[in-house]
Amino acid sequence: MSFDASLPFGDCPVPLVDGREILLGHGSGGRLTAELIERRILPALANPLLDPLDDAAQLVVGGARLAFTTDSYVVTPLFFPGGDIGELAVNGTINDLAVAGARPRCLSLAFILEEGLPFDELDRVIASVRSAAERARVPVATGDTKVVQRGAADRLFINTSGIGEIPPGVMLGSARVRPGDAILVSGTVGDHGIAILSKRKGIDFEGSIRSDTAALHGLCAAIVEATGISLHAMRDPTRGGLAATLCEIAARRKLGVECTEAAVPVDDGVRGACELLGLDPLLIANEGKVVAFVSEEGAEAALDAMYHHPLGRSAARIGRVVEEHPGRVILRTPIGGERILDLPYAEPLPRIC
Amino acid sequence: MSFDASLPFGDCPVPLVDGREILLGHGSGGRLTAELIERRILPALANPLLDPLDDAAQLVVGGARLAFTTDSYVVTPLFFPGGDIGELAVNGTINDLAVAGARPRCLSLAFILEEGLPFDELDRVIASVRSAAERARVPVATGDTKVVQRGAADRLFINTSGIGEIPPGVMLGSARVRPGDAILVSGTVGDHGIAILSKRKGIDFEGSIRSDTAALHGLCAAIVEATGISLHAMRDPTRGGLAATLCEIAARRKLGVECTEAAVPVDDGVRGACELLGLDPLLIANEGKVVAFVSEEGAEAALDAMYHHPLGRSAARIGRVVEEHPGRVILRTPIGGERILDLPYAEPLPRIC
Repeated sequence: MSFDASLPFGDCPVPLVDGREILLGHGSGGRLTAELIERRILPALANPLLDPLDDAAQLVVGGARLAFTTDSYVVTPLFFPGGDIGELAVNGTINDLAVAGARPRCLSLAFILEEGLPFDELDRVIASVRSAAERARVPVATGDTKVVQRGAADRLFINTSGIGEIPPGVMLGSARVRPGDAILVSGTVGDHGIAILSKRKGIDFEGSIRSDTAALHGLCAAIVEATGISLHAMRDPTRGGLAATLCEIAARRKLGVECTEAAVPVDDGVRGACELLGLDPLLIANEGKVVAFVSEEGAEAALDAMYHHPLGRSAARIGRVVEEHPGRVILRTPIGGERILDLPYAEPLPRIC
Repeated sequence: MSFDASLPFGDCPVPLVDGREILLGHGSGGRLTAELIERRILPALANPLLDPLDDAAQLVVGGARLAFTTDSYVVTPLFFPGGDIGELAVNGTINDLAVAGARPRCLSLAFILEEGLPFDELDRVIASVRSAAERARVPVATGDTKVVQRGAADRLFINTSGIGEIPPGVMLGSARVRPGDAILVSGTVGDHGIAILSKRKGIDFEGSIRSDTAALHGLCAAIVEATGISLHAMRDPTRGGLAATLCEIAARRKLGVECTEAAVPVDDGVRGACELLGLDPLLIANEGKVVAFVSEEGAEAALDAMYHHPLGRSAARIGRVVEEHPGRVILRTPIGGERILDLPYAEPLPRIC
C-alpha cells in the first residue's frame, strides 16, 4: 500500500507545484506522491482504519484481528532479473501483511490485460503467481480479469489485495515508534530498482544484479517471536527506498531519525551501478527487505533473528530514533559529516513495481 | 469478481478459438472470458477457496466467517448517466460481498492513473468514492496509487477489494442451488449497460436511461432475514447480464434453468434502445440488481422483502431451476415458443464496468 508517503509539507524545502494534471512523478514514491495522497485522497477518505497509513490496515472483524492491504503492480518490463510482475504482486502484498505482524491468509488477484497480449506472456505470469503463492503457502482466494483495447493499458497490470491474521499480543505500527528505538534493516538495499533499471536500459552491470523480491512473512514472524513487545513497527521499504521509509516515520511521528550511511548494507554491484548512474541506493526500491523499529533491549535479539533467517543474513543496525530535529532524517556520512536525507521531488525510476 | 464465468466447454455450440493473444472479447463476460478463466487461470491457481467461483470467496480467519472479493474497474467513459467509475467501484465490491450474505466491513481502493489525467477528473472520482462509501457506511481501509506514462493506461482504472462478515447461520453459494428453486430478480435488467452505451455513442434514448449502480447490502440483508435457510444463493448479474448468471448456475450445478422472458422486468426505454440496436437486455450488464435462488417455500417471502425495499420495487419471479436439460437455460418466449439462452462468444459492449 502506498498511501504511506505522508510528509510534513510545512517542512518541505522545495516549493510544491499544484499543477492541473497527474505527472509521472506522482507515482514515484517521492514528494509528489506524498502531495497527491495528503492533499487529494486523505482529506476525502479519512477514517480511523485508513488514517494510520501503515503498510496494512488493522481491523477487528467478528472477533478476529485482521490486516488488510492492496497494491497494484504496473512494473515495466514484466520480466526482469530475479523475478517478474506475478511474483512481485504475490510477494509485495504478503510483505505488507507481514510487516504488520500478521500471518498472511489469502490473496486476491485482479488482472487488467491489454488486447493483443500474447498468451505465452500471460501464461508465464500466471505460472509465476502460482509458484510464488505455493512457495509462500498463501492461496489466491478470489480474482477478476478485465481486458482493455490496444493502447489503453501497457500489456498487463495486476492488483493483489490480502488478508492476514494478527496473532494475539502482536501490536505493531508506526504510532508505536519512540525515541531510542534502534533501526534495523534485513539486508542490502536498492537491488530491486537497479535490477529493473538494468533490464530496462539494457545495461549489463557487473555481478548480475537481481531483484530481491521475496515473501517476508517467515522472516517477520521470526523477528516478532524474538522480540515480543520490544518490537514497535516494521516497514517494507519499496518505492522511494529506505529513505522514504525513514522520512515517513520521522514526519509522521514528529521524531528525528539518525542513520549511519556506512552501516547500510549495499551490494557491491548495486553500489557500482548507482555511482555510475548518479543514483543514491537509499532512494532505490526494495522488494524483499524489512526495516524494524525496536527498543534498545530488543535490538540484539531482532538482529540475531534476522541473521538466522535465510532472507536476513546481511541484516544491519543502521540508526536510531531520537527526540532531536523532529521530522528530519540526519545521515552521518562516511567522511564524518552530516546531511539531511530528503526525498526527491520525484523518484528517478517510474513504474518500478 | 469475474472468475465466475465458468461454462462447460463440452456443450459449447461454437468452436472455441485457441488463439495466441488476448482479444477484447476475453473481458466481455461471454464465452471467451469463460475460456480464459477455465483454461488458463483456474488450472494454475485451483484451491478450495477459489474453486467455488462465487462472487466472493468465503473463509474462516481467527474464528470469523469472512467474505473476500476483488474487482477492477476500467469502464469508459469515466462519468456516465447515473454514476461514475468511483461510485461503481464502491458499489460493485459491496455487492459481491452482499450476495454472499455478508455484511460489508471495509474496502481497499487502488488507483492506476495515466500521466496527464486532469486533477479535476481525479477529484470528482475521489469525491464520488467518498460519497458512495459514506452512503453505504463502508470505510476505505487501505489504498494504493500508481501512475503510468501517457498512453500506458486509459485515464484512470480502479481496483476495489472488500472484506465482509458472514453472520452466523448464513450459508449461501451456488453449490446450494437445487431443482425446484424459484429464481427472482430484484428489478429491471440492462439499465447499466445501455446507460454506458448511450453516453459512449452520444445517443439520447427516450426516458433518459441511467445506470442502476447501487449498493445492495441493505436489500440482500433484508432478503436473508426474510428467508432464512430457504435462500440458497444470490448473484450479482454484471458483465454478461442476467443471461451469464443463469448460464453459469446451470453449467456449474449441472441443472437446467427455465426462464419466462416476459416475466423479466425491463425498463421501457432500455427495451426500446435494445430493439433499436439489436441487443438483448438479458445480456446487458447490471450494477444494482440481485438474482436470488430460493426454495419454493421461501419464494414469496423473498419477493415480499424485495418489494418492501427501495431497490427492489420492480422485483419479479422469472423462472425456476429444474432437473431437466442440465447445463442449459431455456427461455420461454412471449409467443409461446422456447429457445436456448446462450452466452455470445463475446458480449457486444467492452469496458462496461
